[in-house]
Amino acid sequence: MNGVLAPVLTPFRADLSPDPARFVRHCRWLLSQGCSGLAVFGTTSEANSLSVEEREELLAELLRAGIEPAKLLPGTGCCALTDTVRLTRAAVRAGCAGVLMLPPFYYKGVSEDGLFRSFAEAIERVGDARLRVYLYHIPPVAQVGFSPRLVERLLKAYPRTVAGMKDSSGDWNNTKAMLDAFAPSGFEVFAGSERFLLANLRHGGAGCITATGNVNAAAISRLFHEWRSQAAEEMQESLNALRSAVEKHPAIPALKAIVAHYSGDPAWRTTRPPLVELPASQAESLLADLRPLGFEPRGLAS
Amino acid sequence: MNGVLAPVLTPFRADLSPDPARFVRHCRWLLSQGCSGLAVFGTTSEANSLSVEEREELLAELLRAGIEPAKLLPGTGCCALTDTVRLTRAAVRAGCAGVLMLPPFYYKGVSEDGLFRSFAEAIERVGDARLRVYLYHIPPVAQVGFSPRLVERLLKAYPRTVAGMKDSSGDWNNTKAMLDAFAPSGFEVFAGSERFLLANLRHGGAGCITATGNVNAAAISRLFHEWRSQAAEEMQESLNALRSAVEKHPAIPALKAIVAHYSGDPAWRTTRPPLVELPASQAESLLADLRPLGFEPRGLAS
Repeated sequence: MNGVLAPVLTPFRADLSPDPARFVRHCRWLLSQGCSGLAVFGTTSEANSLSVEEREELLAELLRAGIEPAKLLPGTGCCALTDTVRLTRAAVRAGCAGVLMLPPFYYKGVSEDGLFRSFAEAIERVGDARLRVYLYHIPPVAQVGFSPRLVERLLKAYPRTVAGMKDSSGDWNNTKAMLDAFAPSGFEVFAGSERFLLANLRHGGAGCITATGNVNAAAISRLFHEWRSQAAEEMQESLNALRSAVEKHPAIPALKAIVAHYSGDPAWRTTRPPLVELPASQAESLLADLRPLGFEPRGLAS
Repeated sequence: MNGVLAPVLTPFRADLSPDPARFVRHCRWLLSQGCSGLAVFGTTSEANSLSVEEREELLAELLRAGIEPAKLLPGTGCCALTDTVRLTRAAVRAGCAGVLMLPPFYYKGVSEDGLFRSFAEAIERVGDARLRVYLYHIPPVAQVGFSPRLVERLLKAYPRTVAGMKDSSGDWNNTKAMLDAFAPSGFEVFAGSERFLLANLRHGGAGCITATGNVNAAAISRLFHEWRSQAAEEMQESLNALRSAVEKHPAIPALKAIVAHYSGDPAWRTTRPPLVELPASQAESLLADLRPLGFEPRGLAS
C-alpha cells in the first residue's frame, strides 16, 4: 500500500443518519481523482461518532456498490476490544487491504504493556493471516499514541501483520524517527498531512493519508507520482497553501463546506454532534481564500 | 437521588468476557454496605472498554437477579450519539433512577454548541419524561467537560430531565462553583471522590460517586449519614487515609486487587486492556498500607 489515501468524509442526512448514496459517490470521485486508497472511518470521517453497526452498514454499501475492497483501509480501533475485533474481522473477511487501528483512547496515561496487550489481543482474536494493521498515531485527538518502543514490540511479535503507521502527530521529527527506525525493513509510514508528503517520500515513506485529500486528491497525488521532478518543491508549496486555508477553520466542517459548495449539494454540510457545521460567514471566507489558489475540484458530484 | 454510589467494578473471566455472576454478587454486597445506588458502567467499571451489547447484557443480568432498577444509575454516554441513545433508552425503559452521561469524548476542543447539541439530541431522541440525566464531568480522563454555561443552557432547555452532575474534576473550586450556581434550584451535585464528601454536603451537595466506594462503602456511607456529628472531620480524615493508600497505584487495578484479596477470589484481579493488573509486589504493598488503617471489608463474597 502506498500513495495518497483520503480519510473519507461521512455524509449525514438531515436526521443525522449516515447517507450511503452520497458516501459511495464521494468514494468513487476520490478514486477517480487519483486516490490510491480510501481510509474510510477515520477521524475526518467522524467514525467515532458512528456506532459499530453504522460502520458495518456503510462498509457493506461500498462493497455492494462495487468499490474494490483492495482499495479500502477502514478505521477499526475502538475503546472496547470487542468492538475493535468485530470491525477488524469484518474488514479482513471483506478483503480490505488493511485496517487503520486507533489505540483504545478513553483511559489516558496507560502503560506500554496495556497498549501492547490491546493490539496483541485484537490481532490474535482476529487470527487471520490476511490481516494488515496500520497503527493510527494521532495524539492531538486520541491523546494516546505509539512510542517507538511499542511499535518495535508489535513488529517483533507480529512482523507479518503490523504493516505500517499513519502519523498524525503533526511532528515531522516523530515521523522521521519512525521512518529511520522501521521503514528500512518495510514498515509503511504515511504522513497524516500532505504538508509532510515530499519529506516523507524523500525519507522512504509510503505516502500520506490526509483530510484535505477529500477535496484536493488530484494535486496531492500528482506530487506523490512526481516527487523526484524539479517541480516537486513548488507543488508541495501549492499543497501547503490550500491546507493553510482549510486549517484556519475546524477541519471537518470546513471540508464538508467545500464539498457542499463545489458539488452544489448543501446537505453535505451536515456534521454529527459534537461537531457543528461551519457558520455561513466562515464558509464564505474559506471559499474566498481558496479562489486565488486556483482550486477547482472537477466533477464533485452532488 | 442522594448518598453514596459506587461506580461498580466490572469483573472479567480469564477470556476477558464480563462475568455476570461476580458482578451481581458485588452489586448485592455494595447495597448491603449502605450504597444508596450503583453507578454501574462508569470509568471505574471499565465501561468504555465494553461494547454496547456487553453493557446491555450486564444490565439485563442485574435486573434478572432482582437488583432494584431504582438503585441504578448506569453510565450511557458514548462517542456515538446513536450508542448513547440506545443505552439511555434501555436504562429508562428498565426503570433506572437515571443515567450518568459522559460527553462524546473523541474530539477535543469541541464547542459549547456542539456539546449542547449532543445532549439535546440524546434527550429528545430518548423522549421520555422519566429520563433523569446526570452530567458526568471527568476532564482528567474524558478531556471534554462541562462549563457552568453549558450546564446552565442544558438546565434551561431541559429543567425536568437534567437532574445533576458527578464532578470528577478533582477540583473542589469547580464543585463549589457548580453547587453555588445550581444546587439551590435542586440540581444534585455528587463529588467524584469521598475526599470532598463532607465539604460537598456542607454546601448543599447530594453525596458522592466514588471509585473507592467499591471497597469502603460502609465507612463512606456512615459519613454521609452522620456528617453533622462532631466526629465528621475525623471520619473524613479516615476516609482520606484509605483513599491515599489506593491512590498510590492505578486506581482500577488497585481496587480489583483489594476485592480479589478480601474475597479470596484472585479472578477479580483481571482487567481488560488497555488496563493491566496490579503487579503482585504493588498489590502486597497496597495491602500492607491498608492494614494499619483498620480496613476490613466484611463479607466480600468470592
